[in-house]
Amino acid sequence: MTTDTTTNSPVTVLGLGSMGSALAAALLKAGHPTTVWNRSPGKADDLVAAGAVRAASVTDAIKASPLVIACLLDYPVVEELLAPAADALTGRDLVNLTNGTPDQARALAARLDARGAWYVDGGIMAIPRLIGTPEGFILYSGSRETFDRARPALDRLGGAHYLGGDAGLASLYDLALLSAMYGMASGVRHAITMVGEERAAEFGSAYLAPWLQAMAAPIGQGAAEDEEASPLGMQAVGMSNIVEASRGEGVPNVLLSHLLIAMQDIVDAGHDDLLPPLIDQIRKAG
Amino acid sequence: MTTDTTTNSPVTVLGLGSMGSALAAALLKAGHPTTVWNRSPGKADDLVAAGAVRAASVTDAIKASPLVIACLLDYPVVEELLAPAADALTGRDLVNLTNGTPDQARALAARLDARGAWYVDGGIMAIPRLIGTPEGFILYSGSRETFDRARPALDRLGGAHYLGGDAGLASLYDLALLSAMYGMASGVRHAITMVGEERAAEFGSAYLAPWLQAMAAPIGQGAAEDEEASPLGMQAVGMSNIVEASRGEGVPNVLLSHLLIAMQDIVDAGHDDLLPPLIDQIRKAG
Ligand SMILES: NC(=O)c1ccc[n+]([C@@H]2O[C@H](COP(=O)([O-])OP(=O)(O)OC[C@H]3O[C@@H](n4cnc5c(N)ncnc54)[C@H](OP(=O)(O)O)[C@@H]3O)[C@@H](O)[C@H]2O)c1
Ligand SMILES: NC(=O)c1ccc[n+]([C@@H]2O[C@H](COP(=O)([O-])OP(=O)(O)OC[C@H]3O[C@@H](n4cnc5c(N)ncnc54)[C@H](OP(=O)(O)O)[C@@H]3O)[C@@H](O)[C@H]2O)c1
Repeated sequence: MTTDTTTNSPVTVLGLGSMGSALAAALLKAGHPTTVWNRSPGKADDLVAAGAVRAASVTDAIKASPLVIACLLDYPVVEELLAPAADALTGRDLVNLTNGTPDQARALAARLDARGAWYVDGGIMAIPRLIGTPEGFILYSGSRETFDRARPALDRLGGAHYLGGDAGLASLYDLALLSAMYGMASGVRHAITMVGEERAAEFGSAYLAPWLQAMAAPIGQGAAEDEEASPLGMQAVGMSNIVEASRGEGVPNVLLSHLLIAMQDIVDAGHDDLLPPLIDQIRKAG
Repeated sequence: MTTDTTTNSPVTVLGLGSMGSALAAALLKAGHPTTVWNRSPGKADDLVAAGAVRAASVTDAIKASPLVIACLLDYPVVEELLAPAADALTGRDLVNLTNGTPDQARALAARLDARGAWYVDGGIMAIPRLIGTPEGFILYSGSRETFDRARPALDRLGGAHYLGGDAGLASLYDLALLSAMYGMASGVRHAITMVGEERAAEFGSAYLAPWLQAMAAPIGQGAAEDEEASPLGMQAVGMSNIVEASRGEGVPNVLLSHLLIAMQDIVDAGHDDLLPPLIDQIRKAG
């Protein structure tokens, strides 16, 4: 059991949605004295039963700990909640794990800096059940001092990666990674629709997951195949066959759109003669 | 050295493009007496130097071995080359690794069956440099007898997976997997454009590759998170932030299209109030 609260510094968690609850539970389990606040107070019940302290207001919650972690719906909510409690933040560390844009993170960092508070922005690359396990990781950027001070607590949440002093970096990387995930998800949905729901489970675990993992492995290693190894004309035939077979299997046209995006690469490589027939084929497949 | 040709049965390879050459090289390296044919005969030079026999015609090539492997640009080329050589195929096994649609595979299987030849269709899930390594795999479907007879040779090319007697299955799975790969590629391209070329290598290997591998791992395991764990409203905020940050980083609008496809899932889940504002935002980001 890791419940020696004497060596773990107090932490406050603002926001107990599905992610905030997981963060608070991981801190509590690791023995951090944990204060929580949520707009709908009932969401704190389980955590309070497990030893957390429920704060009556955002200001009370902030005053309870030198480190405040926010995990809310979006930045406007963060700004709205912090505005009346701004004085309480002076001299404290705020780690904001709410999804936002780089500009939102930089603007909040500047406002807190002006008030003598310390700011780190974070992007959670995990789903709630992976919080506190080595499978999830979290990107951080902003004040190096805050990151170092908060590190023992942050390590409870998953692998901690500090990207640099620019508070906007973590969210830039976060959004880029999410965007890649949505691209993959659209391809996965297309693939599963093609093979059919009844084959989806076996196809997914035996072929699709290992295939995508193998194709993802060399990303960033400069091992992109050159045009000689995977000729574009050959790729255009493959795409055309995907469109034709998708039509045959009744896969909705909207899902073919990700092929149009891939084709853009072919055009950019100077092979724009390949594109018009493929676009035409996708339109007709609708 | 595995050059004991007495125990390895002869194989013919039709087509020495970037993939066909890799297949022939792997068979030759494993000690199979290998006959090759290619429209542009010069592409056989290296293989002949390594011990392959160059056939003067497709018919001669087919007659040289009980097992013929075809790897050509597309099915029309396969049909065009086999038509005048059809008699020579009688009583032989043809494994066609040319990319095509399920219907093309089934039609060719039926034509060969009518001539007393045996047909297996295959989909190569590998790039040329992975042929003959455990990292690549090949999907097969069609005649079980042909697959079993050809197995010792096919095992030289990469992991061999037999999907069933329907000759169209391998290409259905192949095209579905390729489609998922193109979805992932469009997401990867978006992500790398967002973080910028100068950070691409470090971002790709340290974050993007492990992230996509982690997100791909549970595919097919029924471990898709339910709506409670990853609320759609929260996801819509994330997508909106991707659009906003992409605009900020000057990422071309065309690449955002994969988000529109992901949003379709949100609409399908009955949350169509989330879609119009997001579509509107993507249009304005252009
Ligand atoms: N869930 C995931 O898989 C996941 C993964 C990575 C990152 N994240 C990030 O984690 C953050 C939280 O996500 P979540 O999944 O926990 O979302 P969620 O379950 O929808 O929770 C949203 C939270 O925001 C609060 N909130 C919303 N509007 C408010 C307002 N006007 N005033 C005060 N509080 C308000 C909610 O309070 P009520 O309880 O009172 O509604 C709740 O605490 C998001 O930025 C998300 O991108 C989530
Ligand atoms: N390369 C890869 O990464 C990869 C991966 C998986 C699957 N595949 C599949 O492997 C197959 C071959 O691809 P590849 O990469 O080897 O393509 P490639 O390098 O473009 O080779 C195409 C082959 O088709 C021949 N060909 C084209 N038109 C012809 C015609 N009218 N008559 C006779 N021969 C003709 C070419 O002969 P010439 O040499 O005379 O032009 C060459 O042998 C495709 O179905 C592809 O989908 C390739």
